[in-house]
This record gives sequence, structure tokens and C-alpha cells, in this order.
Amino acid sequence: MYKAQGEKHWFIPDGYIPETSSGSLPSHESICVLNTSSEEALLRITIFFEDRDPMTDILVVIPARRTKHVRTSSLGKNGVPIPIGVPYAIELQSDIPVIVQYSRLDSTQAENALMSTLGYPIK
Amino acid sequence: MYKAQGEKHWFIPDGYIPETSSGSLPSHESICVLNTSSEEALLRITIFFEDRDPMTDILVVIPARRTKHVRTSSLGKNGVPIPIGVPYAIELQSDIPVIVQYSRLDSTQAENALMSTLGYPIK
Amino acid sequence: MYKAQGEKHWFIPDGYIPETSSGSLPSHESICVLNTSSEEALLRITIFFEDRDPMTDILVVIPARRTKHVRTSSLGKNGVPIPIGVPYAIELQSDIPVIVQYSRLDSTQAENALMSTLGYPIK
Amino acid sequence: MYKAQGEKHWFIPDGYIPETSSGSLPSHESICVLNTSSEEALLRITIFFEDRDPMTDILVVIPARRTKHVRTSSLGKNGVPIPIGVPYAIELQSDIPVIVQYSRLDSTQAENALMSTLGYPIK
Repeated sequence: MYKAQGEKHWFIPDGYIPETSSGSLPSHESICVLNTSSEEALLRITIFFEDRDPMTDILVVIPARRTKHVRTSSLGKNGVPIPIGVPYAIELQSDIPVIVQYSRLDSTQAENALMSTLGYPIK
Repeated sequence: MYKAQGEKHWFIPDGYIPETSSGSLPSHESICVLNTSSEEALLRITIFFEDRDPMTDILVVIPARRTKHVRTSSLGKNGVPIPIGVPYAIELQSDIPVIVQYSRLDSTQAENALMSTLGYPIK
Repeated sequence: MYKAQGEKHWFIPDGYIPETSSGSLPSHESICVLNTSSEEALLRITIFFEDRDPMTDILVVIPARRTKHVRTSSLGKNGVPIPIGVPYAIELQSDIPVIVQYSRLDSTQAENALMSTLGYPIK
Repeated sequence: MYKAQGEKHWFIPDGYIPETSSGSLPSHESICVLNTSSEEALLRITIFFEDRDPMTDILVVIPARRTKHVRTSSLGKNGVPIPIGVPYAIELQSDIPVIVQYSRLDSTQAENALMSTLGYPIK
């Protein structure tokens, strides 16, 4: 049995899905989650906006002893995806401890730009 | 009622508003703040410089259950904005806990460069 | 005698070795480890994937009072390297405290993109 | 009297001064330090390498209520600068608490790449 590591509650204030891509790689963001334990982790994601109420209860499963680099463009609620070109923020709650990092590849212009940060854990 | 999450006091030592832009996106910095609570958050921002006294008491409101990606070029005091092309540092105090991330898009040259980090919280 | 500083257990959820390079610098990732102590540090690295079991017990030595910027493309097990173009995550355990930062240079397109973050320490 | 904020001891494992520059901005790294207090801060910096003994006791002063974005290319000992094109790591000790962030601009190729992270504080 492997132990769950990290925290159950994480935040990423700077979310943004770029509107355009060019070159060989599409613009995208990834929420990179690591589940070290022998049990699967159930994530409950909330998306906060500047001008409207949050999207709540987006569910994602991370299998046991696996990582998952979740594309934010794949997330949504009732068939409605996270809107592109809009600033937002991410709250992530997990039933067991996980570790969370956020990265963005922006290929709006011909060459790529990258940024990454750990999530902010609530302990 | 939703609970405030994070900390009331944050720092970002590396602030810099690029002087020039090219291509389709303007150079800019964002202080990305998330307020998870049911009450609005009142931020009090201080800007530190290398060669002059700080700019103090810049006020920003983050509505309840909202994020705000604050452009630093929109911040100022008595009609005087943060100067561009000058290294500075940011102190952020909030009346309720919030979570803070800082990101910069530099389009000084034709293609973009991105950087991001969480703020440093005082606990 | 110099003291070991940092933590013995670190995580980096967003690992990825880019498939292609162009220009004068090859795409690469580095796990940057600092060992401040007068004793050498023995690292035991585990690589987690999205779709297969982890690669375990990859060993790296960091000499006393030295840093080592470990290229992930140099890591492997039984002659099998970490696969390129595949999302993965990194667990790093050390017999003495060290400090860990992760950086990636992506030169998939003609110009470079950089990202960096501290590892996530378990205290 | 303003209070010192942050920590007295910080690490940055991934230091590197790029060998070449192109375009309008030179490649450089900055150690961005914020001193919120009414007293000046005296920093003592140690540089660790992969293959040689550390450079020790590099001194930098941060004035009261000021930030300083220290170019690493300006640091050295007995007239010897930090070598360029060589991986290294940074230890920073201050006589009073400060906050530390590290950023790198790489203009090896025609367009810029940026990375940034907070330092790792010892509490």
C-alpha cells in the first residue's frame, strides 16, 4: 500500500485559455496532478470568474499511482466548457492528498511561451 | 456562506512593466487574486522601488466569489501610475484571506515570453 | 562541517521531455538539486506516468557542497530512459535534506521557451 | 518604524548566466530582494557549483524600504565574477528578514524566454 502525499485543497489564481494558436503546438493549459497512493483520487474542481458566478463540481478521477496532466479545455459542466480568452481561477479539492502544478503553453504568436507554478496548498 | 481561503499578506519581489510591445499582444503584468469568500476583499497595495520611497495605499476591491487579474499598469496613486521600465516590488494586504499569483507577458520582441509565480504569503 | 538544508522528499508533477528541438539549444529539462552539507546526498527518484506503472529506484548522487543540474534525459532504469513526448511526474527522496528546483527549456519552435518552479517539499 | 518581513535564509538551486544574447535585451538573471524594514539588510551570498568549491561571502546591501533586483553578472569575489555558461546554485543569508524571487531572461535566440520562481525559504 502506497501512501497519499501532498494536500487535499489547492488553488491556482491565474487561469487563462489562449484564444489562438500558431505553429506546431496548440496553446493550452494543464493542471498536472500526481496521486502517489494505492487508491484513486476524486477531484472536485471549481472555476471562478471576474464577472459571473463560479462553475462548480467539475469531477476528475486520478487513478492510483498515476499522474494526469488535465487539459483545462477538456473541463466543463453540463456540456459547457471553460470559456476561452477569459481570466479565471481554479480551486481543486481532492478526497485524498495529491500534488498540483499548473503550466501554460501560449503559441498565440509563431513561437511558444511557457509558464509554470505549483498550486497553492491549504494545509 | 463561503469561507475566505489563503492569507491576508503577500509579497512579489520582481515587478517590472516592460517599456515596449510588438506583435498582437501588449506587454503586461497581472496580479491575479482569488477571493473565495461570500464577502468582498479590500486590498491595500504598496509598491517598493530601488531609488525612491514607496507608493502606498493603492486600493483594489475583489468582489465576493470572484477572481480579478489586476493589470499593474492600471494601478497608481493620485493619478500617477507605476512607472514603466523600472524594477519594483509589490506588497499586498487584504482585510480577508485571498490567494495571489503574479504573471508577466513580455512582448518586447516579436514573440511572447511568459513567467509566473505564486506570491509569497506571510502566515 | 556544513549542515544539510531543505527537505528529504520532493515532488514535481509536470514532467515532459519535448520531442523536438530547433535552433542552437536542444530542448531539455533539468532537476536542479543543491546539497549544502559536508556529506554526499543519495537521491532515489520515481517517475510516474498516466498510463503505466512507475519507474522506481533511479539513483543519483549529489556530492558534498555541490549542486547538480540533472538532465532528465540522462535518467533511466536498466538501460531504459524516460520516454520522450510523454507527460510524467517526478518523486525525489534523498537520504539527507536538499533543495530542488525544476526547469524546462523548450526549443520545439525556432525560439526558446522557459519555465521553472521549486519542487513541492513534504515536511 | 517598519517591520522586516520574510525570512533570513533563502536558496535558488537553478542559477545559470546564458553565454549569448541577441535582439534588444541582453540575457541576464536577477535575484530580486525586497526589504520592507526601516533598517538596511546585509546579504551574504554563497555560489555553489557542480565541479568546484563554492564562492563564499559575496556581500550585497539592500537599503531600508527598498527593493533591489541584483544582476548576478554583477556579483563576484576578489574581482572574479560568477562564470557564464555554467550551472550553479545560490544561497542567500540576510541579517534581517527579506523576501527573495529569482528571474531569468534568456535571449540566446532572437526572441526572449523568461522564467521566475520564489526562492526557497528556510524557516
